[in-house]
Amino acid sequence: MITETLARIRPADVAAAQTAQAGLDAKTKPRGSLGRIEELARRIAAIRGTPTPGRLAAAVVVAAADHGVAGEGVSAYPQEVTRQMLANFESGGAAVCVLARAAGASLHVVDAGVGHPTANIVLGPAMSRADAEEHVTRGIALAGELARDGAGIVALGEMGIANTTSAAALSAALLPADAALVCGRGTGLDDAGLARKIDVVRRALAVNIVDPADPLLVLAALGGFEIALLCGVALGAAEERLVVLLDGFITGAAALVAARLAPETVDFMVAAHVSPEPGHRLVLDDLGLDPLLDLGLRLGEGSGAALALPLLHASLAVLEDMATFDSAGVTDACR
Amino acid sequence: MITETLARIRPADVAAAQTAQAGLDAKTKPRGSLGRIEELARRIAAIRGTPTPGRLAAAVVVAAADHGVAGEGVSAYPQEVTRQMLANFESGGAAVCVLARAAGASLHVVDAGVGHPTANIVLGPAMSRADAEEHVTRGIALAGELARDGAGIVALGEMGIANTTSAAALSAALLPADAALVCGRGTGLDDAGLARKIDVVRRALAVNIVDPADPLLVLAALGGFEIALLCGVALGAAEERLVVLLDGFITGAAALVAARLAPETVDFMVAAHVSPEPGHRLVLDDLGLDPLLDLGLRLGEGSGAALALPLLHASLAVLEDMATFDSAGVTDACR
Repeated sequence: MITETLARIRPADVAAAQTAQAGLDAKTKPRGSLGRIEELARRIAAIRGTPTPGRLAAAVVVAAADHGVAGEGVSAYPQEVTRQMLANFESGGAAVCVLARAAGASLHVVDAGVGHPTANIVLGPAMSRADAEEHVTRGIALAGELARDGAGIVALGEMGIANTTSAAALSAALLPADAALVCGRGTGLDDAGLARKIDVVRRALAVNIVDPADPLLVLAALGGFEIALLCGVALGAAEERLVVLLDGFITGAAALVAARLAPETVDFMVAAHVSPEPGHRLVLDDLGLDPLLDLGLRLGEGSGAALALPLLHASLAVLEDMATFDSAGVTDACR
Repeated sequence: MITETLARIRPADVAAAQTAQAGLDAKTKPRGSLGRIEELARRIAAIRGTPTPGRLAAAVVVAAADHGVAGEGVSAYPQEVTRQMLANFESGGAAVCVLARAAGASLHVVDAGVGHPTANIVLGPAMSRADAEEHVTRGIALAGELARDGAGIVALGEMGIANTTSAAALSAALLPADAALVCGRGTGLDDAGLARKIDVVRRALAVNIVDPADPLLVLAALGGFEIALLCGVALGAAEERLVVLLDGFITGAAALVAARLAPETVDFMVAAHVSPEPGHRLVLDDLGLDPLLDLGLRLGEGSGAALALPLLHASLAVLEDMATFDSAGVTDACR
């Protein structure tokens, strides 16, 4: 299934973007004056393959999983919080639940391995290649289901105690970058915790086979299950021509793996925000994505993606509903 | 009425903000991890004078007026566009109409002097002090009406060919700053137009009495009618404890006049975005406001304010609806 999906991912439609921009240029506003909102409308037109994408329904996918590396003391929170938060997602009290509701998006919580942690990456691979393929495949299938259910935008979110360590290790391997440049404080590490985390990433990179030419093996080596699943969602969404709205550093790492497997996947991505995690900016730069928001968000869950959704909807409303100079009788010519 | 309003403006409620933050700290997320969304929730709590402001209805006020200085060739568009756009606001086809609808906000279009331009500021004052007071008073009254109609947030927007020149002159006088630092290309000036605009601002500052100690006289000298009205809306909103959501450079200039008349007015303001107009950042820095968005928006009308509204609503949803560690049974303690 992965091979077939990779083969079916096509670049976005540049002609649709150009026609959409011509439509925007006919609207009653100085050309380009809506800045990145116009850029968003163009990008969504290219993704959807039409200059008139209309309005799009949005689905937020939150994948949760546990990480063996949590035993190394790389998170400020104990591992049981992953399961507790899974319950919180399901009862609607977590931030992403509130923010997805506010944005009118559906929420899809996926247990990708809560209570069944990956192996500890400082000792060897997080999972087997077969495990990685299974989770990527599951993500691809989920994107297909969401497309069939009418979603036009899929926002990626995650939960997993210690998963910024996994994201840091993946980024260090795939960018590549030094461990110290991609490790941050996550949800609240102190200086000693941060130093430990950098050391853990270095050891994980030393003990595992991390050949960037084999991104799936890197993914299997450094984990986690939720990142593999979200990588699959990104690939499947690109295949289905859905907008892939990235959240923070961990979804960025999943996107990076997807981009290494199929570079055209990046055409379908929009970066919702940039977080204070130092690796996040590096990943977005590598992907060539300019984040929409910079609000100091470091929660994850897809919360930043949900906060950016109204900007995507607004760009589509502008494209669809604004009057043209002709229809409104407004003078377009400069003197 | 202005004197009474100025006397009734009180600082925002710091205690309400602190209690709101304590509430946020009990929610199921690492403390502070929603960054500026938490800051927004605190600020709105302080403005409303309660740690539980609930949800707030938003009204977008678009004030339109013409400017005598348009005759100096400081805009890429002819003056008749102001009247044409007023009609476009009323028929629902302008960007702010689409974006206010998308954000669930009501739209209030105010003709503050379309077809009745202010005098040309390079020749003398834009309007008399009595005219300025009349427009400020009208804005105060409008804020009062919006408050009585249930609005909790008032977003400021404007339309007026050549009004970035008026905003630049006001900023230059009140910050103070050199004309070259506050003049930009507006909706599309070329290099010659920009040089002309800077010269026009210098001449306006030379020919008029611009004593920063008398902000109302500066406002009367440099105009315009829509800026005076929006200054009144900001003052009246502060009196009514409404959130004042600023849009771009022109609403920023109106806010600057309001802040010079009553410094506590700033407590009630939120900066939606920063535009590429060079004077906008200087005005926001002077007001001590950190913009939420930076999307290259240079349209005005209140479009950027409408785009930022969902962030305000999201902050209120987080404050009201998120589960607490206790209620959700999530472990709060670090190891």
